[in-house]
Amino acid sequence: MELRREFHRYPEPAWREFRTTARIVDELERLDVDEIHVGPDAIDPTERLGVPDEPELSRWFERAESTTDRSDVLERIRGGNTGVVAVVERGTGPTVGLRVDIDALPIEEATADGHLPAVEGFRSENDGTMHACGHDSHITFGLGTLKTVLESDFEGTFKVFFQPAEEVLGGGKPIAAGPHVEDVEYLLGVHVGLGHPTGEVVAGIDDALALSKFHVEFQGESAHAGLAPNRGRNAVQALITAGGNLYGIPRHGGGNTRVNLGNLRSENASNVIADRASVDVEVRGETTELMQYMRDTSVRILDSAAEMHDCTVETSLEGHAPRADSDEGVVDLVARITADRSDVSSTVRRDALGASEDFTHLLQAVKSNGGTGAFVGIGTDHPGGHHTPTFDVDEDSLSIGVAVLSNTVLELLASGVTRRR
Amino acid sequence: MELRREFHRYPEPAWREFRTTARIVDELERLDVDEIHVGPDAIDPTERLGVPDEPELSRWFERAESTTDRSDVLERIRGGNTGVVAVVERGTGPTVGLRVDIDALPIEEATADGHLPAVEGFRSENDGTMHACGHDSHITFGLGTLKTVLESDFEGTFKVFFQPAEEVLGGGKPIAAGPHVEDVEYLLGVHVGLGHPTGEVVAGIDDALALSKFHVEFQGESAHAGLAPNRGRNAVQALITAGGNLYGIPRHGGGNTRVNLGNLRSENASNVIADRASVDVEVRGETTELMQYMRDTSVRILDSAAEMHDCTVETSLEGHAPRADSDEGVVDLVARITADRSDVSSTVRRDALGASEDFTHLLQAVKSNGGTGAFVGIGTDHPGGHHTPTFDVDEDSLSIGVAVLSNTVLELLASGVTRRR
Amino acid sequence: MELRREFHRYPEPAWREFRTTARIVDELERLDVDEIHVGPDAIDPTERLGVPDEPELSRWFERAESTTDRSDVLERIRGGNTGVVAVVERGTGPTVGLRVDIDALPIEEATADGHLPAVEGFRSENDGTMHACGHDSHITFGLGTLKTVLESDFEGTFKVFFQPAEEVLGGGKPIAAGPHVEDVEYLLGVHVGLGHPTGEVVAGIDDALALSKFHVEFQGESAHAGLAPNRGRNAVQALITAGGNLYGIPRHGGGNTRVNLGNLRSENASNVIADRASVDVEVRGETTELMQYMRDTSVRILDSAAEMHDCTVETSLEGHAPRADSDEGVVDLVARITADRSDVSSTVRRDALGASEDFTHLLQAVKSNGGTGAFVGIGTDHPGGHHTPTFDVDEDSLSIGVAVLSNTVLELLASGVTRRR
Amino acid sequence: MELRREFHRYPEPAWREFRTTARIVDELERLDVDEIHVGPDAIDPTERLGVPDEPELSRWFERAESTTDRSDVLERIRGGNTGVVAVVERGTGPTVGLRVDIDALPIEEATADGHLPAVEGFRSENDGTMHACGHDSHITFGLGTLKTVLESDFEGTFKVFFQPAEEVLGGGKPIAAGPHVEDVEYLLGVHVGLGHPTGEVVAGIDDALALSKFHVEFQGESAHAGLAPNRGRNAVQALITAGGNLYGIPRHGGGNTRVNLGNLRSENASNVIADRASVDVEVRGETTELMQYMRDTSVRILDSAAEMHDCTVETSLEGHAPRADSDEGVVDLVARITADRSDVSSTVRRDALGASEDFTHLLQAVKSNGGTGAFVGIGTDHPGGHHTPTFDVDEDSLSIGVAVLSNTVLELLASGVTRRR
Repeated sequence: MELRREFHRYPEPAWREFRTTARIVDELERLDVDEIHVGPDAIDPTERLGVPDEPELSRWFERAESTTDRSDVLERIRGGNTGVVAVVERGTGPTVGLRVDIDALPIEEATADGHLPAVEGFRSENDGTMHACGHDSHITFGLGTLKTVLESDFEGTFKVFFQPAEEVLGGGKPIAAGPHVEDVEYLLGVHVGLGHPTGEVVAGIDDALALSKFHVEFQGESAHAGLAPNRGRNAVQALITAGGNLYGIPRHGGGNTRVNLGNLRSENASNVIADRASVDVEVRGETTELMQYMRDTSVRILDSAAEMHDCTVETSLEGHAPRADSDEGVVDLVARITADRSDVSSTVRRDALGASEDFTHLLQAVKSNGGTGAFVGIGTDHPGGHHTPTFDVDEDSLSIGVAVLSNTVLELLASGVTRRR
Repeated sequence: MELRREFHRYPEPAWREFRTTARIVDELERLDVDEIHVGPDAIDPTERLGVPDEPELSRWFERAESTTDRSDVLERIRGGNTGVVAVVERGTGPTVGLRVDIDALPIEEATADGHLPAVEGFRSENDGTMHACGHDSHITFGLGTLKTVLESDFEGTFKVFFQPAEEVLGGGKPIAAGPHVEDVEYLLGVHVGLGHPTGEVVAGIDDALALSKFHVEFQGESAHAGLAPNRGRNAVQALITAGGNLYGIPRHGGGNTRVNLGNLRSENASNVIADRASVDVEVRGETTELMQYMRDTSVRILDSAAEMHDCTVETSLEGHAPRADSDEGVVDLVARITADRSDVSSTVRRDALGASEDFTHLLQAVKSNGGTGAFVGIGTDHPGGHHTPTFDVDEDSLSIGVAVLSNTVLELLASGVTRRR
Repeated sequence: MELRREFHRYPEPAWREFRTTARIVDELERLDVDEIHVGPDAIDPTERLGVPDEPELSRWFERAESTTDRSDVLERIRGGNTGVVAVVERGTGPTVGLRVDIDALPIEEATADGHLPAVEGFRSENDGTMHACGHDSHITFGLGTLKTVLESDFEGTFKVFFQPAEEVLGGGKPIAAGPHVEDVEYLLGVHVGLGHPTGEVVAGIDDALALSKFHVEFQGESAHAGLAPNRGRNAVQALITAGGNLYGIPRHGGGNTRVNLGNLRSENASNVIADRASVDVEVRGETTELMQYMRDTSVRILDSAAEMHDCTVETSLEGHAPRADSDEGVVDLVARITADRSDVSSTVRRDALGASEDFTHLLQAVKSNGGTGAFVGIGTDHPGGHHTPTFDVDEDSLSIGVAVLSNTVLELLASGVTRRR
Repeated sequence: MELRREFHRYPEPAWREFRTTARIVDELERLDVDEIHVGPDAIDPTERLGVPDEPELSRWFERAESTTDRSDVLERIRGGNTGVVAVVERGTGPTVGLRVDIDALPIEEATADGHLPAVEGFRSENDGTMHACGHDSHITFGLGTLKTVLESDFEGTFKVFFQPAEEVLGGGKPIAAGPHVEDVEYLLGVHVGLGHPTGEVVAGIDDALALSKFHVEFQGESAHAGLAPNRGRNAVQALITAGGNLYGIPRHGGGNTRVNLGNLRSENASNVIADRASVDVEVRGETTELMQYMRDTSVRILDSAAEMHDCTVETSLEGHAPRADSDEGVVDLVARITADRSDVSSTVRRDALGASEDFTHLLQAVKSNGGTGAFVGIGTDHPGGHHTPTFDVDEDSLSIGVAVLSNTVLELLASGVTRRR
């Protein structure tokens, strides 16, 4: 609990979890974990999405340097290669993974009287940044589960993935493409809250839609809107044409799809033909394939709209999450475990996430190798909603989470079912 | 006058003026003209626009064969190479040209009592086709002027261009690119009517806008709109996107431009994703360059719109007229001549055409070689408007036209001013 | 069989089934049916969709007059009030309905050697019209089932709905809103073919999407595209804007939707600002509510697009089919019956229709009163596809259809389950 | 000159010229001017456009309070009623007006060595605000001309309009609609620089296009783009539709028009249906009527686009300038005066402004009452371009401007021509 309060106090946003990573390593060393992987040993850096620019990275790196003495760790994660993979191995048995995410949000934390972190002195020290989605609890779940498992008898391998950059859907793929997911046979993910009260557990949470989002920049050429509009190459016209046609991407006979535009911006005054215009686009699909259909069609539309107005366009993928659902077997197991526990008052078998999660990258990788998994929800009374300044968790839920997760991990390890020989 | 009535009786539309061409050749031979050029000797066939398909050409060719015995002429103009150039030459002197157009319109002529051609028995024999813009008079002007000039003393060269396919703006360029315009130093064009009464003459008519028009066909792929709209490649979406952006082509700092769409068509039922959609587009500009800007931009938009919806597009130029204005010197001369004539009650120095005319192709060619010219209006009381079933001319205006034009031609020849040595 | 060939020979399209209606009445009278309702007694004329104009109706009415002596019947259905409802009643028992559709398609029937109706002399006598979807068989199913039921012992009420104008989705609602559907407790519909071979029966066919289609006319004002485009009120711009936005109607969180445009038309030449433009729009939805969402949004878009370009718009509903699925109980019964029959070699429990059917209007009405129903498919070897010139049915399937339907009807009547007392 | 440097040092942007107004009043009192009108006595406050919000006004008001002791003046112009009208009257004679504008720009002034105001210590004291368009010189012209005229013999009335808020085209109308323009018979405006070197004078500057610009805010309703896009009312779709159609407003047969969009903004993330979107729109026309056509059509498009997507829209006029050209008589006079002066090395008779100026409001008002006027350019060597951080004027041009303007004013007064009796 102290640990969770400390992580809450030093929130760091996507790819800037420098101090967080160093502190996790500290704790893992204290637990005497077999292998601790950080930086390029933990993730595939080439798959990172939504990495901020160098000055931003440096600013957070320097801040981390001033609050930790683990310069050895910092050096290995410089440039935004945050995240940790912990591995413990005992004899022969299945490989079980638990993924927890570690990044915070660009939200200014509440100072109000009713807000416990403010009252009890563990409000964010990093102005404008806040653990407003409970990832501080997730880190604690990861460390706590590891501790419990280590204190138990088991055969097999247990890995904990402390994943960076979930909020931008940018860290899941780098972990999934890294060297430690491939051999996982059972994978668990976990999220706190989501409207479920303390004592309630969701055995399998899934989102109905795969998602990609990308940032789009149209570049044209300015001209005076009165004297010679013809000399311009109008980035706003390109954006408008793309926008109208993106919303008009044909519906798909194979299932539901989505498309939306956000964060439109073109700053030229109205007496200047716009030379720049930008927009964020997200597409979703009931399956990863449907989402990919939307994405491919979007790219074609964006390219053609630029060309139509003699502009150029750059599209950068900012986040991505495939569709991958919790498996029935693991959901069964979690539900069975929670049914027996006195600290779990209610078990919801399955629930819809309603948002996107890049845990699906890891789950998809595990499934493609024949493994199974589930995304577990640990209820907590939370006064403010997720992603709001007054979000907080009921600390009673921390021990419930650790108990449910470690029980599940140990049962999976004990199942003895393994693909490997 | 008899001649005009005969031409009125056998109207033939663009590139189908087979009988008309043969009859003009007949008359030119009777006048003992020095050179008579038809077919590829008169025009550059590769520059023809708006030529109908082969069955349509054949239909009219066969009709012409049945009403004339000039199979020698017909043979040379088979396939839609209609039109005649007549040349007379006497010693050394300037080269003067007169252009008259010879094609009719796809309009069903009135049968009403008040319509003189119906009453006096020279209504169109070719159902659905009519000389509703006075080109029958223009042919008469050409032949009459040639006759008067031949009966006069003059030194120099006089050419009459009997141009086909003016109504589709498709015959001007072929004549201009043919072998007979290059050496013309003074060029006259003529139009009857245009709202001016009998006795009024306009010394110089000009249109304010150059024009191009093209036919556009989008080709995509059908799919069932309920089962799998995603499998289609929607030609209607391509058309719609192109259309919106065509109307939005940036205005030009250099002057007025125009764009318009007509004749939209996509015949798929609404339960099928459209695999075809077509539209006619016309663009105009205050100068030929401005029109060209509109045309280039249109092509880029059409291409990109097709690409955006994974369709293909074919664009065919259907008509074209540059901007070329009457020259002050020739306008002066015409105005001076008409001022002296008792049969001309009123002279308008300059007037706007309000429609497009491909005479500008010839005038532009002459100007580019250092020559000058004017497009002359010969007033006539006309009961119905141009391009309506009750259009007709007051035959009194025929002799006025011939007199004004032949006087002008003779004065130009007499001016002795010539570029050549 | 003879009867089916006769109906095949005199196909009549939607709302023009004058002879067909008269001949059905003939047959019903021969069967000594208790009640025969035609015209406004059978349907609610105010709910008819897709009714052709008066000259077209008159043309077919006169044709019917010349091939039947039932002027008494014709008189009651004049103006396109075609269709018949037959009712037989024996004591107290459930009310069972069977709906068959009776209209033909605007397709020219094949003359080829391989086409049986051509070879055996019952090819369409009405040029350009053809029973290319098997409704001739459906009529036979209706009459045959009625005959079999009448020859059996039963208690309760049996109704056969001979529905006009299915092909335009325009006759279902008038029947459903008429006076004879309200008390139906079990409803059967039937379709022949649909790719299923002779001997195969589908116990419940359903379409996945509700549908509405409407015809849209934009009316603006013409102007010369060169002289004064500003004076026009451009119907093409209204159409283009509507079109782009129709395809962009937001996807619905509640399920799949569809939208498509067909039959675009604007006939003005490109040098005229278009004063008219028309298009057909169809929308679909996974539920009737989703379809209604699409329809309401479409209407708002069409209205606003017209207003935006200072045009007016008229929208006429041309066809409409809600979503209504076959009920499990009735599907069970049909499957059980077919399982026992030697002439049915294969039973498909459920299949997707893939097209729309306005049988759903009747089924929806029955369901809303607490009843149930199913849409049954009777397989037939058909050489050409539905809606093609070589479509034909294997006449062996006629008796199978009558047997399956009459057995089902009799079992439903025998079930004794009725809501009424 | 000292005065111009002082005004340069305390630049104040549109409607915030509090200190500037107070200092002008100071100077006018020192010149012993007959009438000094400020606040609602000078302008019609209801006609102001582009007035900032109250906190912004207060901030500048307080700043002015701290650098002037003229709280009497400040009190009368509180709330952004800046500007002064000075009137001097001597007997009977014509009424001549001179308009100078007094506001500065939101530009950070250069600190570079080469920038004279920085070197000589009169760089802007108001960070982020700068006299980067020479209005400091214009104030000096106004005061200097008034001084020279007062020192001369004349009969008639001379008014100087110190106009606020020209940069936003927001102050011209309030002055024109105020009580002091109506009786002006000759009106002069003046601008320094515009690419003309010191010693050059332009007798009449005109812009070719009238202009209006407005700010547009669409308001819809947010919804989750994945869960229920249908529940949103999408302000971005409204903006996109409006944008495409604004660029497509039909060209006008009466002359050139313009339309452009700038400053697009919608800040919702892409996973949220946008509830707000804003854009600036400007329209222009060769005449005020043409501009009005564009404006009326724009408003209709904006309204319909909002309605189409179930949004609302608010449109606020931000600036406006009609077309009003310098009159030949006054241009003649200025050209004649400059031709005689040794400090004027070159006279340009007429030049295009290329930007918009709301002087045209005053000139239009004067013309509509039968008066005439001209907008005079006083050349000055300026190192940086207008509206750039290194803009500066050659102070030698100050005396030239005063001399040319006062000579012109005195000649106009001396002309004795007056409409009044």
